[in-house]
Amino acid sequence: MWTYEIAVDWKDGKIGEIRSGGKPPVAVATPPEFGGPENIWTPEDLLASAVASCLMTSTLFFADRAKITLRSYASTAVATMEKTAKGLAITGVKVAVVISLENAEQADAIRKAVEMAEVNCPISTTLNCPVELQLTVE
Amino acid sequence: MWTYEIAVDWKDGKIGEIRSGGKPPVAVATPPEFGGPENIWTPEDLLASAVASCLMTSTLFFADRAKITLRSYASTAVATMEKTAKGLAITGVKVAVVISLENAEQADAIRKAVEMAEVNCPISTTLNCPVELQLTVE
Repeated sequence: MWTYEIAVDWKDGKIGEIRSGGKPPVAVATPPEFGGPENIWTPEDLLASAVASCLMTSTLFFADRAKITLRSYASTAVATMEKTAKGLAITGVKVAVVISLENAEQADAIRKAVEMAEVNCPISTTLNCPVELQLTVE
Repeated sequence: MWTYEIAVDWKDGKIGEIRSGGKPPVAVATPPEFGGPENIWTPEDLLASAVASCLMTSTLFFADRAKITLRSYASTAVATMEKTAKGLAITGVKVAVVISLENAEQADAIRKAVEMAEVNCPISTTLNCPVELQLTVE
């Protein structure tokens, strides 16, 4: 069992600050479409970031285990929020990953590593909405 | 319908970077207990932060609607990750919130606002694990 502890304190208006040990604090706020300021991370952004960063760290793990050498890994993630019968909810997260390899012969192996990451990412498995992953290997 | 887009790129070793428009980039990495570096945000931290910051912004919304004046709002959140039959998963998030009021007569009203936030937070409702909230009003 592992635990992850963070703190969120309200600062001013619709803005708070996230802290966790020696990690750099991050400002967080209500999204602009709900009256919050521009250019500050929102809870919804953080959820999308948790999913996409977990897929990245999990892919790095499985790629390392299969001795695959990555040249680059770039991804974007879009979380969709909708009004549902149970109120506002995230109804899906779409992640697009582009991986560039040092060795083209490892294309099948990296596809398998990403599949393993997709199944084993502990953030995706904790969401009750679909997480779709689209992979491009270069 | 609202959408939230972020990008995560791998930088080096087990470290990546999250970006989203004009928001300050945030480094993210595999947790130390899985071979990552110290003092960098992890996907699990980001999930706990998404939950706790959503409870904060939702509470601010309902407090504002009920004309409650907050002196302060401080919270901590602990996400627990465990090995389950389906692999690693977040099995619960515990959030402790301490709210200080300008006017003690608004204690019942703020309790109600936090209950509304708990039910309506779009991050909690998207998780398939329990989110427990403990509230202290001062």
